[in-house]
Amino acid sequence: MDLTAHTLDLTLTTPFRISRSVQTLAHNVLTRIDAEGLEGIGEAAPSGYYGERRESVFMALSDFGERIEADPSLIEDIVTAMDRRLHANAAAKASVDMALYDLLGKRLGAPVYQLLGLNPDRTPLTSFTIGIDEPAVMARKAAEAAKRYPILKIKVGTDHDLEIVRAIREATNATLRVDANAAWTPKQAIRVIRELEPYNLEFVEQPLEPTDLEGLRFVREHVTLPIIADESCETESDIPKLVGVVDGINIKLMKCGGIHHALRMIHTARAHHLKVMLGCMIESSLAITAAAHISPLVDYADLDGNLLVSDDPWEGVQVEQGKLILPDRAGLGVRPRDHDAKRQALANAASSSRHSRRATRVEVDEEE
Amino acid sequence: MDLTAHTLDLTLTTPFRISRSVQTLAHNVLTRIDAEGLEGIGEAAPSGYYGERRESVFMALSDFGERIEADPSLIEDIVTAMDRRLHANAAAKASVDMALYDLLGKRLGAPVYQLLGLNPDRTPLTSFTIGIDEPAVMARKAAEAAKRYPILKIKVGTDHDLEIVRAIREATNATLRVDANAAWTPKQAIRVIRELEPYNLEFVEQPLEPTDLEGLRFVREHVTLPIIADESCETESDIPKLVGVVDGINIKLMKCGGIHHALRMIHTARAHHLKVMLGCMIESSLAITAAAHISPLVDYADLDGNLLVSDDPWEGVQVEQGKLILPDRAGLGVRPRDHDAKRQALANAASSSRHSRRATRVEVDEEE
Repeated sequence: MDLTAHTLDLTLTTPFRISRSVQTLAHNVLTRIDAEGLEGIGEAAPSGYYGERRESVFMALSDFGERIEADPSLIEDIVTAMDRRLHANAAAKASVDMALYDLLGKRLGAPVYQLLGLNPDRTPLTSFTIGIDEPAVMARKAAEAAKRYPILKIKVGTDHDLEIVRAIREATNATLRVDANAAWTPKQAIRVIRELEPYNLEFVEQPLEPTDLEGLRFVREHVTLPIIADESCETESDIPKLVGVVDGINIKLMKCGGIHHALRMIHTARAHHLKVMLGCMIESSLAITAAAHISPLVDYADLDGNLLVSDDPWEGVQVEQGKLILPDRAGLGVRPRDHDAKRQALANAASSSRHSRRATRVEVDEEE
Repeated sequence: MDLTAHTLDLTLTTPFRISRSVQTLAHNVLTRIDAEGLEGIGEAAPSGYYGERRESVFMALSDFGERIEADPSLIEDIVTAMDRRLHANAAAKASVDMALYDLLGKRLGAPVYQLLGLNPDRTPLTSFTIGIDEPAVMARKAAEAAKRYPILKIKVGTDHDLEIVRAIREATNATLRVDANAAWTPKQAIRVIRELEPYNLEFVEQPLEPTDLEGLRFVREHVTLPIIADESCETESDIPKLVGVVDGINIKLMKCGGIHHALRMIHTARAHHLKVMLGCMIESSLAITAAAHISPLVDYADLDGNLLVSDDPWEGVQVEQGKLILPDRAGLGVRPRDHDAKRQALANAASSSRHSRRATRVEVDEEE
């Protein structure tokens, strides 16, 4: 089994602003595993917020790829080995995990959802995210987006969140979720959420800083909207302490380390009757499709990273009025978007050396 | 998809006694699902202790089988539907779940362990169980069994448990586990376990009645041996309340409803840092092999039900010095033991009508 890593640059259609940062580019990594004449592909979207950047992904994969000799169908073993050696490099691990599932599916001639016994028709609708901007601009974007996406996720955590939500609600009847990305204090959260509650929202994501679990419990007890933990919940070991603290968790492949870990998180969350959301970073259709394969297991999807970029080189999951439409090809079912894109992808792959280590400057490297 | 259920009778080599019962026969059920020219097989080992018997399995399968029209590869959907309709019929559900995994593996040409990304070399050693008898008889049986099985599980819960364990320890250096099958009171458990601790045991299974969780916590705090919950832990929803109460859980396909549920339980237990054991009822090699496919995920195996019967019609997982050796055939990889057995199995199947409902007298119907 031969593991190589390559640059995968993505450009956002418009700068993407959340409460703590703005992002215009995503310096992602394409991971390829070749074995038995087949090619498995995965993607890392490293986030500086979680301590990763493209260079650290290259280093982790180089270190790991040189040592690994396992049969790529032994996903459990390889994931365990990555957890031991690449502990916090979740995006790097996710890219390998995805490539392994892609390879297993291709080897068995089955889509990943079928390996997992899932019904591809049960995918949820994904939300489409509206980044922070002037309220009028956000309202205009929301109205435009609502024509194609019945669920919108609104980034908040400004000093004028009520104005934003009011303007958007006046502009559209879409289902609305809000995400504060850890911007509020507990009392502020309760005040703002109560102000927002009349505007018919679905839930509030990550109102407080990640470690303030007692604050989250306090907020949850004082508002009626469900509270979903995102930054507070990276891997399965975070779930037990969130029971009774929030109503649900947002799982991202780039936080937990891939499909294998995400399945563990889903099952653990279900045993605790927590709601499950599946989210993403700014990712191409490669990583988004990987997440979409397990989306029949979740309540809420926010798998729109690929919809926010102008140069997605891959074609995989499609979205029709928000509904995630899984490809029925073997493995992840992801292929180059068109011949031009294919040539570009091949050229990129050829230009980056095996186990590339590049001192890539990470301009903005933030989670969605 | 065509679901049929057939009788599967098993005879124990010697009567099998535990603290609350003795068993000489197992009135199990063979479930067959035919789809797309392939045949998936599963087994139910109904336990009166958990409210099932062969007739209830037939009724549940008849009811469910007549309504189901799903593609058998949609395991998640079918398991969810069974949970809704066949709530407590765990053995009945397990037999369908197993048959579905068998079918999916056969359809994709892969053993079930490979669908799950597991390494077949990582199976644990199974213990071999010594039922309750006179201490000298148990010691003789233990010494004999230890020649082929390096780990023995000793049934206790008598008024002379110390004598039993002392006699067995004098007869063998094998790894020893004890299982009280809910026979003790909390104070009695602490006293007996402390008496047994000098005899180098691995752990104690289910010392107290299933619902006495505070008692279990009390016992665990007052002894040094790890405590494993069996009767206290049927499905994944039982796990959260066992955290801090016991050191591990014993998962059985016949308690939880099959492979799909067992995977959820394993992941949930792991997130809570609980040890995981995989056990069984009196089952043929069919159900034992189904459990063995997921055994690379667990710490302890007690998959010996098929070793205790004289007329196992199936051939699947093998045991070599306790080590579980998985078949590498597609699906569960289970096939009729030999041609005579095959003829017998076919004759049995032919003689029982589709969706058979038989008022079979269940002579003894107890869990292991």
